[in-house]
Amino acid sequence: MEIPKSHPRYASLMTRHKLVEGHRNGLTAPEGLIAHGRGEALDYLLGERTTEWAARAQRAAAAALLLATRPVISVNGNVGALVPEDISALANALDCPAEVNIFHRTEERVSRLCQALRGSGCVKVLGDRPDAKLPGLDHPRAVCCRDGIFSADTVLVPLEDGDRAEVLVKMGKNVITIDLNPLSRTARAAHITIVNNVVRAVPELVKEVSELKRDLGAGKLDSAGLDYIIKGFSNGENLEGSLDIIRKGPLERLKGQRPAPNSGTDGK
Amino acid sequence: MEIPKSHPRYASLMTRHKLVEGHRNGLTAPEGLIAHGRGEALDYLLGERTTEWAARAQRAAAAALLLATRPVISVNGNVGALVPEDISALANALDCPAEVNIFHRTEERVSRLCQALRGSGCVKVLGDRPDAKLPGLDHPRAVCCRDGIFSADTVLVPLEDGDRAEVLVKMGKNVITIDLNPLSRTARAAHITIVNNVVRAVPELVKEVSELKRDLGAGKLDSAGLDYIIKGFSNGENLEGSLDIIRKGPLERLKGQRPAPNSGTDGK
Repeated sequence: MEIPKSHPRYASLMTRHKLVEGHRNGLTAPEGLIAHGRGEALDYLLGERTTEWAARAQRAAAAALLLATRPVISVNGNVGALVPEDISALANALDCPAEVNIFHRTEERVSRLCQALRGSGCVKVLGDRPDAKLPGLDHPRAVCCRDGIFSADTVLVPLEDGDRAEVLVKMGKNVITIDLNPLSRTARAAHITIVNNVVRAVPELVKEVSELKRDLGAGKLDSAGLDYIIKGFSNGENLEGSLDIIRKGPLERLKGQRPAPNSGTDGK
Repeated sequence: MEIPKSHPRYASLMTRHKLVEGHRNGLTAPEGLIAHGRGEALDYLLGERTTEWAARAQRAAAAALLLATRPVISVNGNVGALVPEDISALANALDCPAEVNIFHRTEERVSRLCQALRGSGCVKVLGDRPDAKLPGLDHPRAVCCRDGIFSADTVLVPLEDGDRAEVLVKMGKNVITIDLNPLSRTARAAHITIVNNVVRAVPELVKEVSELKRDLGAGKLDSAGLDYIIKGFSNGENLEGSLDIIRKGPLERLKGQRPAPNSGTDGK
């Protein structure tokens, strides 16, 4: 399949293509493809860009990850297929593990995702030898690693299932998610929700973390400063802002364009 | 996977499950799963119901199919996996062919879809021996059957690609589509666009056709009456109405519900 770079939907089509490849290579579940489609529709309504709300959430997320004692990044089949290099760069910058944790669990798929992360240079990869369970979830969805998600104080869980996000919150963890649906249970349960496409959000998070690290290193910022960034962020306000964009954004613009006049059976 | 009937998202989850099965059985392409996800998000915003606009479009579509000299129903990998029985019932009621016509064409998949339709009792199934081409499209997307789509005066093409929908319109055919995105090229190119989920729209179309046939048989309705139904329908108005529901519907209702108060990093 050849998509010219000039195609107005080039980025979206390439991402779709990458995920279909991920599915063919055993990284992504068929249910993950459907979930991606839901994201595509919402991303389209958001204008397929990092909104001001997403940018604010990303900055707060970077600060929270840097302030954490035991941060962990959870990786599912879509994230592992779409942005393995950026996840690896983020985990390495934070000196934290990336833990493969998938909803439709098979050991084969977990193993391939771990390989993909290791192949992208990720130093600490967990997930293929789970030794702990999240409370209140059925077995395949509960298993995780004691040195990873189970004992983390802060978890970045992009594209997470609502049940599991709620359990992580109940366990007292600081939960950061990336979710294009501001109405989802995950989006509403998390402490920081980045309403953005993972293909933009994760590389942008890497950049935010490296900027904050640079300023921490140069003595321009300290942990009180990171805390100040986080305290200035309201997830509720952020979700409502994102929802407003969906309501008023591209739909409002496109609503003005009446469909081309029809012929045939359309009498008007 | 067991989904209890009481689950608030039972219908949507069962449809998703059916499509994943269709993919495992070689009926649905991975790209079709992603497309289904886009539909899921839009269906959610429309309230997962047949709107008044969809009902009007369905009535006009039934009238147009009954008034047609050579109607044909085009079947792709998602429609074939989700509603083969309803497509067969519709084709049989109209005494017309169902033609398998897929975007990511493989002969294997075409053959499985033809089998699925024949297994559902469809009398006239086309697609596995294409002998004509739609003008202006590349080969795999152009092939079709001379006695089917190529010479049809009216085509029902649910979930169609924009390029091909536009070609069918240019060929002078009456084009009816089912598409959950009122902004898509297909939705805007077609003469009658049913903005509804195929799992609701196709069985409802079967019902509309049978009601109109009954009234035609009883002498309560004639072809002038069918024409009157069609002339009373405006696709432009219908698309704008559907778009308004997406803008004002569930989002408006849900906007009032503020997310649950957050703890942890969310200071507000």
